[in-house]
Amino acid sequence: MKAIHMYGAGDVRSIDVPDPALENGTDAIVRVVRACVCGSDLWPYREMPAGADGQAMGHEAIGVVEELGRDVHGLRRGDLVVMPMFAADGTCGFCREGAPYGCERITFFGRAGFAGAQAEAVRVPFAAANLVRVGAEADDALLASLLTLSDVMGTGHHAAVVSGVKAGDTVVVVGDGAVGLCGVIAAARRGAERIIVLGRHRDRTDLAREFGATDVVSERGEEAAQRVRELTAGTRGAHAVLECVGTEEATATAIAVARPGAGLARVGVPHYPAVPQAMTAWVKNLRVGGGPTPVRAYLDELLPDVLDGTIRPGRIFDRTVGFDGVSGAYAAMAGRDALKVLIAP
Amino acid sequence: MKAIHMYGAGDVRSIDVPDPALENGTDAIVRVVRACVCGSDLWPYREMPAGADGQAMGHEAIGVVEELGRDVHGLRRGDLVVMPMFAADGTCGFCREGAPYGCERITFFGRAGFAGAQAEAVRVPFAAANLVRVGAEADDALLASLLTLSDVMGTGHHAAVVSGVKAGDTVVVVGDGAVGLCGVIAAARRGAERIIVLGRHRDRTDLAREFGATDVVSERGEEAAQRVRELTAGTRGAHAVLECVGTEEATATAIAVARPGAGLARVGVPHYPAVPQAMTAWVKNLRVGGGPTPVRAYLDELLPDVLDGTIRPGRIFDRTVGFDGVSGAYAAMAGRDALKVLIAP
Repeated sequence: MKAIHMYGAGDVRSIDVPDPALENGTDAIVRVVRACVCGSDLWPYREMPAGADGQAMGHEAIGVVEELGRDVHGLRRGDLVVMPMFAADGTCGFCREGAPYGCERITFFGRAGFAGAQAEAVRVPFAAANLVRVGAEADDALLASLLTLSDVMGTGHHAAVVSGVKAGDTVVVVGDGAVGLCGVIAAARRGAERIIVLGRHRDRTDLAREFGATDVVSERGEEAAQRVRELTAGTRGAHAVLECVGTEEATATAIAVARPGAGLARVGVPHYPAVPQAMTAWVKNLRVGGGPTPVRAYLDELLPDVLDGTIRPGRIFDRTVGFDGVSGAYAAMAGRDALKVLIAP
Repeated sequence: MKAIHMYGAGDVRSIDVPDPALENGTDAIVRVVRACVCGSDLWPYREMPAGADGQAMGHEAIGVVEELGRDVHGLRRGDLVVMPMFAADGTCGFCREGAPYGCERITFFGRAGFAGAQAEAVRVPFAAANLVRVGAEADDALLASLLTLSDVMGTGHHAAVVSGVKAGDTVVVVGDGAVGLCGVIAAARRGAERIIVLGRHRDRTDLAREFGATDVVSERGEEAAQRVRELTAGTRGAHAVLECVGTEEATATAIAVARPGAGLARVGVPHYPAVPQAMTAWVKNLRVGGGPTPVRAYLDELLPDVLDGTIRPGRIFDRTVGFDGVSGAYAAMAGRDALKVLIAP
């Protein structure tokens, strides 16, 4: 089958690999219907040393169940399923607490040697615990939205949950990438009254407004913080801040615009060694959280809203490619020509 | 009256200053019955540049109401009261939310030009909102415990609240100073099953055991983290971590010993520019909080437990001085000869 592997910075290839096969009784083989490129895939695309061994890519997919191990219950061949970005065993203490990122048997797709979801098919461990049946017919638009439940919409939701967004809040979303836009959706969904998005790409911030953003701040760094402080003078900053970039500057801005007692979620993979502004965050008594999204734990809540059209996160995809176009998709996303690229095998 | 002022590193003096007077109708004048030296007072004691203007010191006190402004209701002259370490207006949105550290009219005693509580008397703004009547007779031991409610016991409690300590948890307390010991009390009070304290002063860790600590780790840095990981292998780290030192090393250790999904409170005044281990904290989805303690918000909960002897935080005081002995008290605490010094004017 075809699969996308990365061999170094800027070097993404569609190659032929053996079809995945069941290895354990709890496995399933899923034929991928839609996959996509994640913002986090762009970090290795910029930084990965060139080397002989390629890394299978991709951790976001929806697909159809093709094969089931003998111990998998609750799923049938032919089911359309959402595949969370990592698989956990579903039975350990962490999984039962809704914190599957702590599971010792975790499998991150497309990371550290595991097979990826940017492929025609993927083996999913602990399938019953991870795969979620869609249970409905889906057109292209709905498939796109369902795909976002595999990671990016869940991640925006995670940011809103961790930062504690509640009805009536003033919320700041730092970043107008795919995660930031999903953060806007999530904040609006939880009843935020005011949603200020920090971004400078007009097409993205326009989409943010359609998703519920009430204000756009296009400045960066201290200027952005100053502008947000003006906008939020009445509440002395934001009740909740969603840091959706992963840089030190974005994190410093997030801390600067938070009101005392605010929650701050950093859901961009951090590309900085230490969280800046330790004293400012302390003086404000901020609660700072965030990390890998427990996608599976959120699916029961988010899937119905996607199915009935309450939220339409699939609108973040602005380009669709086949496997031959994936290399170009990485380049387009890295060059900010594309927001997020859908892969339709 | 006598008051303690600091003029530079190592230079603490008992001087004569004018008696405080009512300035606003919401003020009270409190005659100080007990005050003390805070670990945070030791930072300027080590670092303050020598200068002409002294800084009034002290933010922890209990005392007797001596004068009341005309707008103060609910208090009477002669009332024994606990004075929270800062005064807020009690009416703004932040105060009503239990987050008085966000109040725009906040007064930090003994900081940035405000009068301090290491004095024979102190003016307390917004007295009705801040002072809490003890409503009971108190002997020396009870006075000492009541005094801790002014800051240090509240701060230990804040650490337990922010880190989310709950019944049955495994908790790590980093630091065996006064705040750390109060953190042990607070964790035990909330039902922690296992409390591991990191400290190397035998008299302090012995007291920690009396307060409820189940394990003592005397190693530091990575060795301490390794030892805690061995002790907590069953839970993959601590459910809650209370960082009660304020250094980068202590914070890194706190992050290292936290289990995935844990809460971490840093309540030591941070003496580091950035919170270390940004990636480790992210991968574990830690919730990191902490800051100035909203003492007043906790008093309704903690005061009854002190009055009925459920908790005896006053045991942290291991020396008592009058005003003439305060300079020596700073030196003793800075030199680790004393844990925490009580001032009995």
